[in-house]
Amino acid sequence: MGRYQVILAYDGTLFQGFQVQGKQARTVQGVVESSLRQIGWQGRSLLAAGRTDTGVHATGQVIAFDLEWAHSLDALLRAINANLPPDVAAQEVRPAPADFHPRFYAVSRRYRYHILHRALRAPLQERYAWRLWPALDLGDLQRAASLLHGRHDFAAFGSPPQPGGNTYRTIQQVAWNQEDDSLTCDVQADAFLYHMVRRMVFIQVAVAQGRLEPAEIAQSLQFPAQAAVDRLPGLAPACGLVLVDVAYLPDLSSPRIAWE
Amino acid sequence: MGRYQVILAYDGTLFQGFQVQGKQARTVQGVVESSLRQIGWQGRSLLAAGRTDTGVHATGQVIAFDLEWAHSLDALLRAINANLPPDVAAQEVRPAPADFHPRFYAVSRRYRYHILHRALRAPLQERYAWRLWPALDLGDLQRAASLLHGRHDFAAFGSPPQPGGNTYRTIQQVAWNQEDDSLTCDVQADAFLYHMVRRMVFIQVAVAQGRLEPAEIAQSLQFPAQAAVDRLPGLAPACGLVLVDVAYLPDLSSPRIAWE
Repeated sequence: MGRYQVILAYDGTLFQGFQVQGKQARTVQGVVESSLRQIGWQGRSLLAAGRTDTGVHATGQVIAFDLEWAHSLDALLRAINANLPPDVAAQEVRPAPADFHPRFYAVSRRYRYHILHRALRAPLQERYAWRLWPALDLGDLQRAASLLHGRHDFAAFGSPPQPGGNTYRTIQQVAWNQEDDSLTCDVQADAFLYHMVRRMVFIQVAVAQGRLEPAEIAQSLQFPAQAAVDRLPGLAPACGLVLVDVAYLPDLSSPRIAWE
Repeated sequence: MGRYQVILAYDGTLFQGFQVQGKQARTVQGVVESSLRQIGWQGRSLLAAGRTDTGVHATGQVIAFDLEWAHSLDALLRAINANLPPDVAAQEVRPAPADFHPRFYAVSRRYRYHILHRALRAPLQERYAWRLWPALDLGDLQRAASLLHGRHDFAAFGSPPQPGGNTYRTIQQVAWNQEDDSLTCDVQADAFLYHMVRRMVFIQVAVAQGRLEPAEIAQSLQFPAQAAVDRLPGLAPACGLVLVDVAYLPDLSSPRIAWE
């Protein structure tokens, strides 16, 4: 019996999120666990780096599980994929230490958010983007982004895994880039609160649209209990968000970060 | 009553092609005609530049119809889109001459085919691409493409709209481009036979894979009745194909091309 780390890609459109929620809902975890059972997995629940929301996509979600496997890693990769539907695919398999946990051992996560500047519906692009018009100014977004950098109390931007948990997070990167009518926001942090990336994108967009002042972002990080950004509730749509990467120490050992 | 030209974009994945085929099938023409009936259209059948196959996409399909419309063109665009499902959208509306026909008045058509070089399934990219591995050589594809340029009898590459119809077509461009793991083939011609673009892509790919000789393309254009390429039947998958553009004279008048 060994523990394996698997990198997963999925199109979140037809899933009710990552996490199993009961028999009815089609979830990424549910279809992956079914696929693993086909190859002899007898665990109760796989481990995952993050629970993406309904409609959120991934190219670099990380899961782990224990399995008796006598063949090669490549054969394991093929066996997992043979039992998965077209909208989920394992991208990589590697052996992991017996205590490896994809969430607690992660040192950082990276998400990418896609915005499309188009006045009219664009059926071939909207599956994976938030369509907005009129176009936002890249400089406005970049100025809003600079306020989010660093270690802050992000309680106004999302909720912790457990009620009352630590809401401090360290944002290592918030980078907006534009190519023609397509905008991307790359966000990297040690970890994220629930809904935090979509809330961050929503608020930066609101600033670029003139609906919030940049100062209200700064105020909300300083005084999350009376956050100015609360006057504009909302999240950027899930379809624009992709979990791109979860980083670990090279040997997948524990980074010894203290978790709430 | 006036005639209008409308540019349509659609994601072909959930359509059984463009053309109405009976009550059961969900077709692009069917949903667009329903949308037009909501705004008072009483025609029997709209006119279209091309009948894309099941699963083929478009960003520049062109249709035309006669309508009594008292408001602005912009209001017409919005009214059409208000009644269309998310996977179809009108992109542009303009008034057209009373005899305008999007198929017979077209002077050229352009398609783009997408190939993805990836060993493993890529759920976020495969909706709109043919995934192939190992990677093809761009030079091999470009050499195969050069053989298809110009005016030829393409009977070995597709079938004419009417049995026994003219199978000569003029290929104005076959351009392969690569960016990272993504390949595109842009094909422009005065007109295409049924299945011609997908067959052309399939055959160029077969040459790059060493399954056909370049000389067999040349032979098949010269002697379509005993075409060497017939030994390898098949089409590139529909999901990789997009009808990008249909070109007309600036005033949408008849180009006076003789049609079979």
